[in-house]
Amino acid sequence: MESRLANLESQASILEPDAAERRHLRDAVVSHAEEFLEGLEDRLAYVVTDHKGAGLSDMPIRETGRAIEDLLERWTHDVEVPGLNPASGGHLAYIPGGGIYPSSLGDYLAAITNRYAGVFFASPGAVRMENLMVRWMADIIGYPEGAGGDLSSGGSIANLTAIVTAREAKGVDSERVRRSVIYATEQVHHCVGKAIGIAGLKEAPVRRVAMDSRFRMEPEDLANQMDRDREDGLDPFLVVASGGTTDTGAVDPIGEIARVAKARDAWFHVDAAYGGFFVLTPEAPDPIRELHLADSVVLDPHKGLFLPYGSGALLVRDRELLYKAHRYDANYMRDTHRSREEPSPADHSPELTRHFRGLRLWLPLQLFGVAPFRACLSEKIWLTRYFYEKLHEIPHMELGPDPELSVCLFRHVPPGKDADAVNARLIEEIQSDGRVFLSSTHVNGNHWLRLAVLAFRTHRSTVDRALDVIRALVDKEARS
Amino acid sequence: MESRLANLESQASILEPDAAERRHLRDAVVSHAEEFLEGLEDRLAYVVTDHKGAGLSDMPIRETGRAIEDLLERWTHDVEVPGLNPASGGHLAYIPGGGIYPSSLGDYLAAITNRYAGVFFASPGAVRMENLMVRWMADIIGYPEGAGGDLSSGGSIANLTAIVTAREAKGVDSERVRRSVIYATEQVHHCVGKAIGIAGLKEAPVRRVAMDSRFRMEPEDLANQMDRDREDGLDPFLVVASGGTTDTGAVDPIGEIARVAKARDAWFHVDAAYGGFFVLTPEAPDPIRELHLADSVVLDPHKGLFLPYGSGALLVRDRELLYKAHRYDANYMRDTHRSREEPSPADHSPELTRHFRGLRLWLPLQLFGVAPFRACLSEKIWLTRYFYEKLHEIPHMELGPDPELSVCLFRHVPPGKDADAVNARLIEEIQSDGRVFLSSTHVNGNHWLRLAVLAFRTHRSTVDRALDVIRALVDKEARS
Repeated sequence: MESRLANLESQASILEPDAAERRHLRDAVVSHAEEFLEGLEDRLAYVVTDHKGAGLSDMPIRETGRAIEDLLERWTHDVEVPGLNPASGGHLAYIPGGGIYPSSLGDYLAAITNRYAGVFFASPGAVRMENLMVRWMADIIGYPEGAGGDLSSGGSIANLTAIVTAREAKGVDSERVRRSVIYATEQVHHCVGKAIGIAGLKEAPVRRVAMDSRFRMEPEDLANQMDRDREDGLDPFLVVASGGTTDTGAVDPIGEIARVAKARDAWFHVDAAYGGFFVLTPEAPDPIRELHLADSVVLDPHKGLFLPYGSGALLVRDRELLYKAHRYDANYMRDTHRSREEPSPADHSPELTRHFRGLRLWLPLQLFGVAPFRACLSEKIWLTRYFYEKLHEIPHMELGPDPELSVCLFRHVPPGKDADAVNARLIEEIQSDGRVFLSSTHVNGNHWLRLAVLAFRTHRSTVDRALDVIRALVDKEARS
Repeated sequence: MESRLANLESQASILEPDAAERRHLRDAVVSHAEEFLEGLEDRLAYVVTDHKGAGLSDMPIRETGRAIEDLLERWTHDVEVPGLNPASGGHLAYIPGGGIYPSSLGDYLAAITNRYAGVFFASPGAVRMENLMVRWMADIIGYPEGAGGDLSSGGSIANLTAIVTAREAKGVDSERVRRSVIYATEQVHHCVGKAIGIAGLKEAPVRRVAMDSRFRMEPEDLANQMDRDREDGLDPFLVVASGGTTDTGAVDPIGEIARVAKARDAWFHVDAAYGGFFVLTPEAPDPIRELHLADSVVLDPHKGLFLPYGSGALLVRDRELLYKAHRYDANYMRDTHRSREEPSPADHSPELTRHFRGLRLWLPLQLFGVAPFRACLSEKIWLTRYFYEKLHEIPHMELGPDPELSVCLFRHVPPGKDADAVNARLIEEIQSDGRVFLSSTHVNGNHWLRLAVLAFRTHRSTVDRALDVIRALVDKEARS
């Protein structure tokens, strides 16, 4: 047996490259990444390719290894080039992403040291770091002591965790699902609908609350619908508002909705994945300062703090309710229960073992301080206002509502033409041009174009470029 | 407005360090990480501290930034040192983690380039890479074409996704929950119970299926219970087996259970988060080769492929069922629906935007090839057998069942002493000694110690060290 062990150990040793081999691998990756970053200004925001990365299949996983240089070449050709470049300031579609540099170092260090941030006993420091990040976010929205939360992979799991917490807090078991009513506008993010389904609430009635002309929830209609449902013997149990809708950037009147929901004993959740961090800016609309009135709030650091993808967050006003909905015991975890000094993330999340997400957030916030994040968010709001203003100068532009945050809706309506067809053409041409990347949506039955500013690399020159692209296409349309 | 924009842009520019600043930050982190790796041999697997990382609170997030050197010092003292070191080969508790080096480079590159792997239109190459990884795992367990899956943050979300898929595939709506029966042994991982709750199935009856003396599910008892429930007007809808239990490393008889479940039209799910990748070895027990008979299987690359935490995986035999349970449309995603060439992860997962998990898996598999993973897994099995054999030589050791995979149960039962108290003392002393880290569990009402070998850095010398520690403590116990 001893010689078999020695033999296997030697074969497995490939998995542990020594310092020189690590340097070789690291130098290759680091210099590739530096080239990527230094070349960002000249890269397109969207690249159309015929192959769409199909070449990856020509390099199957096999028994023996390959050289890092060959892998990086394949990576570049098949993954880095085709499609959308979310690291680009020209990404002005959906809700743009970011990827500030220190987070990549945080992920690197987290992967090497592999701290287990799920349970206090296993890594008290890693757990404290995650809890400090939750507390910092609770502070910026104004949650009291006693609030809790969870660092998630993104808004979807954070919203799911909120909905499960609401379901448990309000005692909605399977028997009560069909009479437990959920309220939201049709502009709520689709991950909320998805989460409702995952949480086993598919048969719960979902009411579409009316919106004002700026796509914001009407609290009066909410109150009326809740009261009517109550009279009909139903249980209004959950209201979901948006702290910045994805489609139009509208901010629901959080404070008023909170009063309506509270008076009717419903859980009030706000999906502020997109807009929540604007609370750091003086420009934020009032309702963003009222997030603390909600029972739970979702924020996405991979949106509003410009982190690379993989960082959402849930905050819950009463940590105990999050805990009750998500804790679970096991025999083989018995050693871990000795210490109760600090809440363990695994007791406040659908996850147990997971990526240590605290470090990629803590490191940039500590290195840079909050000030530049604040400034960058303000800049995004002003860039959107700037774009909106400049759009007025382009002929036959129909504009959506004044941007409250950093999303702007617009459509080109040249007289005598089918506007939907024109705008469908425009977005296709913008996307294949690729210098900037915008997206489109359907609102009130019409096809609208959207500009969303949240990439930290988007600056005035980027917005000017977007305006140039749009102007040129509008001119072309006029000549056709 | 122009000067305001220029001013904000300049304040925000701190978020974009230039090449020289990046090098400064990177050099500090890289040299810290190298020191960590080079010192691993001499580090304890568990470090008891009084402070438990409390000093992190002395360094709050503030408006201005801090130096990387100060942050790394704080990190080391408060996060890296206290508690368990999962990067250590001496981590022999719970299910050990790993952290092979190329994954850290994968995470680094993923964070910088920030590809969005959720939707094919956005990043066709990143999506293909994730799909190739799913397909590779489907191949190694023997799933047919038409299988699908998802790269998750870990086993918990993967199991949740499987349970939601089963619930939808079997049409268990809220009205049917109370008569839809779930079957598992009491050794199933607790994240399955947690996922059942999250999925709104808390009122579904859960039957504890009998186990043989080696903690493996008894298919006959399963069949009997299912038939009895059917006769009683209930719907047996889900059977959950384990491809390596956490507590004892037992592998349920997958093939036989599959036949029982299939004959009764129930969904058959296997949580093989711990043991699934042993399918790569010639030593794997037969049931691990029968995983392809299940409707869905969970594997954890952050366990069996030695990746850093943050990588689980779900495989589903019929991709279409996973898709039906998790897809969802939205207006603002309309541009993304043009291309249907390749399945999009966001349609097969509770998540939408998330960490690009494909690269941290693809890079090490490509760089090293499969051979060293295979050898390393075999080594883990043989190390456990070696440990088990050597335990026989220590007086008054009661041994659990022959290890099927890489978990070994044992307890010290010196005559005339309270064995539970003795073993509680032993585990405390092993953990405060810290040279190796073992855990304990309660099985059949008794306190057992566990050795689990799955860290890729665990070799014969590590197991010898564990034996030395145990021998010394047993001697001490004999003298007391």
